[in-house]
Amino acid sequence: MVLVGLREDAKTYVWSKKKACKEVGIESFEENLPEDSSEEEVVNVVGKFNDDPSVHGILVQLPLPKHINEERVLAAVNVEKDVDGFHPLNIGKLAMQGRSPLFVPCTPRGCIELLLRSNIDIKGKHAVVIGRSNIVGTPAAMLLQQHQATVSVVHSYTPNPAEITNRADIVIAAAGVAHLVRGDWIKPGAVVIDVGINLIEDPSAKKGYRLVGDVCFKEAVTKASAITPVPGGVGPMTIAMLLCNTLESAKRAFGISDQ
Amino acid sequence: MVLVGLREDAKTYVWSKKKACKEVGIESFEENLPEDSSEEEVVNVVGKFNDDPSVHGILVQLPLPKHINEERVLAAVNVEKDVDGFHPLNIGKLAMQGRSPLFVPCTPRGCIELLLRSNIDIKGKHAVVIGRSNIVGTPAAMLLQQHQATVSVVHSYTPNPAEITNRADIVIAAAGVAHLVRGDWIKPGAVVIDVGINLIEDPSAKKGYRLVGDVCFKEAVTKASAITPVPGGVGPMTIAMLLCNTLESAKRAFGISDQ
Repeated sequence: MVLVGLREDAKTYVWSKKKACKEVGIESFEENLPEDSSEEEVVNVVGKFNDDPSVHGILVQLPLPKHINEERVLAAVNVEKDVDGFHPLNIGKLAMQGRSPLFVPCTPRGCIELLLRSNIDIKGKHAVVIGRSNIVGTPAAMLLQQHQATVSVVHSYTPNPAEITNRADIVIAAAGVAHLVRGDWIKPGAVVIDVGINLIEDPSAKKGYRLVGDVCFKEAVTKASAITPVPGGVGPMTIAMLLCNTLESAKRAFGISDQ
Repeated sequence: MVLVGLREDAKTYVWSKKKACKEVGIESFEENLPEDSSEEEVVNVVGKFNDDPSVHGILVQLPLPKHINEERVLAAVNVEKDVDGFHPLNIGKLAMQGRSPLFVPCTPRGCIELLLRSNIDIKGKHAVVIGRSNIVGTPAAMLLQQHQATVSVVHSYTPNPAEITNRADIVIAAAGVAHLVRGDWIKPGAVVIDVGINLIEDPSAKKGYRLVGDVCFKEAVTKASAITPVPGGVGPMTIAMLLCNTLESAKRAFGISDQ
């Protein structure tokens, strides 16, 4: 893990990932760089992990401080250790037919895993992805399409997101807007996966705030045939898929096949 | 141009590309390999063009003979000379926000150019792409989304392609199925771009066949506000964009900026 000027809210993620590694027996290394580190210094730390044969997965905790070029740092990660799956080469292969990415980004992979393990058919279904970020929306749309869904991507320039979402059999909400998706956006019987993690003020909460998703759960739950909560739905899957990607990377490095 | 066991129907494309190069003053080189060439031989020819500083664009004419691994040959093309834009790194960057591919695949780029030059708004419009090939459907969907359209991709597993297409403001048909898109698929006033090039038997034609698109033109033209014909619509744009990509590549190699 490469951490630069770790923000308070990122500490929880990092802690959860370290804990999960320990539970399954994956050794984790971390390098904590100060907020004012230069891009060069960050790239050098990535290079050190690239060269270390005992490291099979490299995670650069995002967002990076604004003076650092995220594209350059991510491109420095050896594509064979890119367990986040954010390298454009991985994203390109994910988008293309007949190509196999080395890694699938963790959160979208977790969304699909939730569907598969809940025996929800994807093939031939209409899926709507709300949001088109590089780390969730875009790869989630690619994965759903790989599983033979018809996919529509709704974003901030979509004039009628509720109308389009209302036609979906499967909704993946990844816009990063608290309670964006209301009950009337959901077709009765649809499956709803809420990737959003938003902090909203709540004077009744101990810390003064609480975590909510992109979906207004209490409305959507009355329409959906299946729905994930926030917190506790997709979040733990993201970490589980990170561990899977890391294990697969190690197996590849040691030439261990699944067959 | 790298040509392997050139098929009869590909000869026309190759001839058109050479002619277009000549017209604008781009020198073209070609290497014609026999049908039974080994993968190694094809990769070596690609390597020769990679190393030749007077070459700024490399085109491998597809499809390759079945015994040759297309993925491996295309991956051998130096990404800085990949004027077809088919390299997964280019496709990945095209899919991602905040990244710029070195080249945009020619046919999808031609489709967008047709829309832009016809003053057709893309932003906020609902676009339906029919087909999800690596060379047209998939990159066309990415480009439309970059231009802020809401994009749905319809394919062979879509149970209701007519219904979904009927909601589109912009339709790009790239399924490779003659006359798939009928008049009732088109919303009145929609813009229709037909990428299909299909040979159908026609006893009344001199050669016994004729070229038709994926769209039933005579039906769709009564609904659409704008529509491209086949032949003559997208085809010439593909070649024009190939020349653009090659010119941009040469400018990049010589450090000539557009500013």
